Amino acid sequence: MSEKPLPKAFLFDVFGTVVDWRGSMIREVSAAMGRAGASLDTAAFVDAWRGLYQPSMEAVRSGARPWTILDTLHRESLDALLGQYGVAAHFDAPARQALTRAWTRLDPWPDAVDGVAALRRIGFVASCSNGDIALMAHLARHAGLSWDAILGAEPNRDYKPKPAVYLGSCAQLYLPPHEVMMVAAHASDLAAARAQGLQTAFVARPHEFGPNGALDPADAAGWDVSVQSIGAVARALSG
Amino acid sequence: MSEKPLPKAFLFDVFGTVVDWRGSMIREVSAAMGRAGASLDTAAFVDAWRGLYQPSMEAVRSGARPWTILDTLHRESLDALLGQYGVAAHFDAPARQALTRAWTRLDPWPDAVDGVAALRRIGFVASCSNGDIALMAHLARHAGLSWDAILGAEPNRDYKPKPAVYLGSCAQLYLPPHEVMMVAAHASDLAAARAQGLQTAFVARPHEFGPNGALDPADAAGWDVSVQSIGAVARALSG
Repeated sequence: MSEKPLPKAFLFDVFGTVVDWRGSMIREVSAAMGRAGASLDTAAFVDAWRGLYQPSMEAVRSGARPWTILDTLHRESLDALLGQYGVAAHFDAPARQALTRAWTRLDPWPDAVDGVAALRRIGFVASCSNGDIALMAHLARHAGLSWDAILGAEPNRDYKPKPAVYLGSCAQLYLPPHEVMMVAAHASDLAAARAQGLQTAFVARPHEFGPNGALDPADAAGWDVSVQSIGAVARALSG
Repeated sequence: MSEKPLPKAFLFDVFGTVVDWRGSMIREVSAAMGRAGASLDTAAFVDAWRGLYQPSMEAVRSGARPWTILDTLHRESLDALLGQYGVAAHFDAPARQALTRAWTRLDPWPDAVDGVAALRRIGFVASCSNGDIALMAHLARHAGLSWDAILGAEPNRDYKPKPAVYLGSCAQLYLPPHEVMMVAAHASDLAAARAQGLQTAFVARPHEFGPNGALDPADAAGWDVSVQSIGAVARALSG
């Protein structure tokens, strides 16, 4: 632990840090393909869908495209992939919307609900995701999470890791960045938050990308806290 | 009750509907004046502060001024009033900020916390206030309220009763307006929501403006629900 003030708020990355997007989406896509009578490599499809995540946001971040919520980007990526996988004819518009909204039904990691609750006893807890407000609101209800606020991309009309998302989220709690801690499983997210003056907590999620997935290095970058669960962030700060 | 679908979400006006802004601000201003060694008619000062609320927002609504959060408008109104009341010299910048933030310390009406919780068992509950996100987040923690999301003015960058605030708040829950109910103590707010297709619940708050304050007529306008408490909205929908 470094000599910094106890955070008054915690901003959470959500996809991968709080919820298991990959395992949940494999379940959701598999069920949807079954309903549609289509067959494909479900895990590869999910990885391909997530693979379009950064490029689709980059169009907005770069200014090439006006502000567009993630739900719309998810749907556009799905439309493209259904074509690539040769199953476009199996999905009409309502089925495509339903499958896009599967991103609201992601299950939390086992420690997440109690961990967020523990940090909420210390300060504000808010999502700081690239997911849109509605996606986060539905996801919180599905997962049993309680946020003080849904911050992040949509209220600031840009995508992480752009500085405005971190700085705007702090301002949307009336707090200076050094009194706010970003909690994430991804070094790139934490590095961008730290560059804006936020404190950082790395939570290792070795299973985020599946059994063969790449891991972010945990301690290499000197985060303020580096632990294996969200509850351990609360314990590190209380200890 | 009309023949409409059970709402999937409830949007709440906050100042006056959920919290007693006037009684709370009289307490807060009185304490601040005592600390500052200043003396004035506290209730008149609070009413004058609230009196600048609509004109300050109208500059944004009209397009004369770019998007500006309520915290900034509150502070500008306070600066003007401290001068008018001849007590400007008693308040330095930190004291002015502290007094502006008194709007985050408003007490809920006695039925509000349980009432919002009861409606949360039916659907999403979200603030749809002209207060900014940080103001609403701090206020919720002060009052013990739990929202699924903080919607309303700031995420939509305009002020009620502009249509974009109601329509944007519904979209930020992925819901069409007819599946959303606006809960408010003010006919003007409900009328604007109804014009956009939302269902409406009027909650009478006869003490909002103090013993001599004007009352909004309860049943005159044919709201979907018209009751005396937030809990009674839940009972009307369950009955």
